[in-house]
Amino acid sequence: MEDDVTVDFGADGLVPAVAQDAETGEVLMLAYVSAEALERTHETGRAHYYSRSRDELWEKGKTSGHVQRVEEIRVDCDADTLLYVVEQDGGACHTGHRSCFYRAIDGVSVGDTNGDSSGTMVDVENVGEQVFDPDAVYEA
Amino acid sequence: MEDDVTVDFGADGLVPAVAQDAETGEVLMLAYVSAEALERTHETGRAHYYSRSRDELWEKGKTSGHVQRVEEIRVDCDADTLLYVVEQDGGACHTGHRSCFYRAIDGVSVGDTNGDSSGTMVDVENVGEQVFDPDAVYEA
Repeated sequence: MEDDVTVDFGADGLVPAVAQDAETGEVLMLAYVSAEALERTHETGRAHYYSRSRDELWEKGKTSGHVQRVEEIRVDCDADTLLYVVEQDGGACHTGHRSCFYRAIDGVSVGDTNGDSSGTMVDVENVGEQVFDPDAVYEA
Repeated sequence: MEDDVTVDFGADGLVPAVAQDAETGEVLMLAYVSAEALERTHETGRAHYYSRSRDELWEKGKTSGHVQRVEEIRVDCDADTLLYVVEQDGGACHTGHRSCFYRAIDGVSVGDTNGDSSGTMVDVENVGEQVFDPDAVYEA
């Protein structure tokens, strides 16, 4: 069944996109996607995102060589989140880990009880696999 | 290696959280989490989120019975996204599908070229598995 859906890019023109390893199913990263980034991803078969901090379109792996070949793009029920199913070269994370989600949370301590979340700390354990040396890949 | 991390809940006090099926690796949904929702999830072992539309904390499955038992919580490199690794009862999606990402994108057409993303349409194909009847589960 084919259907048309309008993607809800919201007030800032972006939707979150989850990248998942096509082979292992591992969740690799989450980044944001503009309409142009989605179009470029679909056209080229390589994952494009929109950087909120640098305020620009970027192709994943352009600097590091760790590109993502997109096998499938999915859209969720509310059409406000995307899923990129990808073949990941090297590692997805700038820290050198295969996945950005390389830390497991062991404890949560909320800083105060008046609704201010800024003091919320978590105890984490590194459980991820480091697959490259970021200093070697991103050196100037 | 244990470490302390401050979760970056951002201006609106929320971070996106990806829920992944612990057994199959399937990406089930994305929703938003407040500091309180994270604390409750960690305390109870059941996934809690914060609804932006209803403006309230919610426990997944409270109405439908389709709860998520959280095996692990991960935090990403920038500490602004969470990953819930869960045992999912029934289906994660209110449409009756196992995953909210039940539609694959076959085509992308950007509405106009002046940067307005509101007209961006995608052609989708339903590739997901429906595991329950939403009318039966959510009836008044």
